[in-house]
Amino acid sequence: MNPAVHYIDIVRVGPSARASAPDVVAAEEPLEIRLAGQPFVVIMRTPGADRDLATGFLLSEQIVREFGEVSRMRYCTDEDGRDTDNVLNVWLTGDAVARAQAAMAGRRHVTANSACGVCGRRSIDDLMAGIRRVDGAMTASREVIGMLPDALRAAQRTFDETGGLHAAGLFDRDGTLLRVAEDVGRHNAVDKVVGAEFASGRVPLSEHILFVSGRTSFEIIQKAVVAGVHVVAAVSAPSSLAIELAREANVTLLGFVRGRTFNIYSGAERVVP
Amino acid sequence: MNPAVHYIDIVRVGPSARASAPDVVAAEEPLEIRLAGQPFVVIMRTPGADRDLATGFLLSEQIVREFGEVSRMRYCTDEDGRDTDNVLNVWLTGDAVARAQAAMAGRRHVTANSACGVCGRRSIDDLMAGIRRVDGAMTASREVIGMLPDALRAAQRTFDETGGLHAAGLFDRDGTLLRVAEDVGRHNAVDKVVGAEFASGRVPLSEHILFVSGRTSFEIIQKAVVAGVHVVAAVSAPSSLAIELAREANVTLLGFVRGRTFNIYSGAERVVP
Repeated sequence: MNPAVHYIDIVRVGPSARASAPDVVAAEEPLEIRLAGQPFVVIMRTPGADRDLATGFLLSEQIVREFGEVSRMRYCTDEDGRDTDNVLNVWLTGDAVARAQAAMAGRRHVTANSACGVCGRRSIDDLMAGIRRVDGAMTASREVIGMLPDALRAAQRTFDETGGLHAAGLFDRDGTLLRVAEDVGRHNAVDKVVGAEFASGRVPLSEHILFVSGRTSFEIIQKAVVAGVHVVAAVSAPSSLAIELAREANVTLLGFVRGRTFNIYSGAERVVP
Repeated sequence: MNPAVHYIDIVRVGPSARASAPDVVAAEEPLEIRLAGQPFVVIMRTPGADRDLATGFLLSEQIVREFGEVSRMRYCTDEDGRDTDNVLNVWLTGDAVARAQAAMAGRRHVTANSACGVCGRRSIDDLMAGIRRVDGAMTASREVIGMLPDALRAAQRTFDETGGLHAAGLFDRDGTLLRVAEDVGRHNAVDKVVGAEFASGRVPLSEHILFVSGRTSFEIIQKAVVAGVHVVAAVSAPSSLAIELAREANVTLLGFVRGRTFNIYSGAERVVP
């Protein structure tokens, strides 16, 4: 079995019909990298080539600089008997040991190009902990969903200029665009939209549809869940963990929205004809 | 002026000619968020709606939970008189103060969905500090560059199945694919490729072309620079900071590679007919 993909059942909405169908999605899981037993970083990644990923990450961080400074790598064993494919312990040698210590000591205010919603949470169970389900009566019609891509694109004044910006748009259930934001980071575009609504006292967004221009990852759904969004739709594919979280939180998740044709990965009952 | 874009000069390589041309690219800059004066996080983002971004980020992190807990936001003043559009100070009230303190205390081992190459580096100058220029005699022919997209796509066994994975491929100067990796995170795909080469003792990759399936951000170029890659090419657009770093490090950066038509953002002298 290929660890890079998950096989799931979805609902496909086509021009004339709606039917359950099997689908294949890209796997997304957290990998915790430990240095000599100490947690160093959690990376959301597609399983496979984890040792290469850890090596490359440590090289990029310049903790490892010379060939041979990674002496050993091993997946950890968990006392609870849980799956440990997601915790990789790395032992360094030579000058890399001191570099790692310095990096660990100085990492109080580490950056995120992306959500820190995964900080210190190393298993999928940890990631799902504390998720509050959304339970509103919100529905979205197929017709309205079909309008979202063109409406978002029309509002992306910068996109057509550079081809380099992601967009997130917040729509009401009639398909009216309420707010749009653009950013090189998809997660930032979502934060900008949600943040503006929150600052105006309009969170939870239980009567809204969040539409994003690219793919959906775990963190996009996490941001939506925290903001109380009931329906998330995207132009492209969701990751396995985005789907898992959406199902856990009872969020309706749509992907490959191209006009009135799209996939429903979670919460199909909210999509009405 | 729109802060979300930068205007630059590039070289366009077309079917028959090669010419300098003006271009517009998406702006990418670091934003440091401080909580009551203490550095909290650095986010690589497109300038604009920074307050919304900060609010949304703090909400996603669940540091802020109720309307009104963000009491004030102000850009910092730098004693060196440098541009301070990239440091935003946030003051919280109510329970959010205690949540922020707890989060700061517990953030030793913060996660990155993405590079931590930006950790603690808050200005573009900081980000550029310590960059070593690559100086090899590597060249890449237009013909070889034209072959990269099809070669990478053919090797992406998973991509066609899910539509959800990014890919990175390492090619030699004749266009032979040496290694490929896929991941939901583009930066992870690059780490996997570079990490595997490093583990085999083949870094610096001064005779190679790194080709990525999506856009190029600062961190992709940073990873390439650390690995000594001289030529980076991508299917889509680079960010402003990717271009800035590529120019600073003397890396050749190509974008919108569609057959033999592409843009050269940096290091044009390495591209030969």
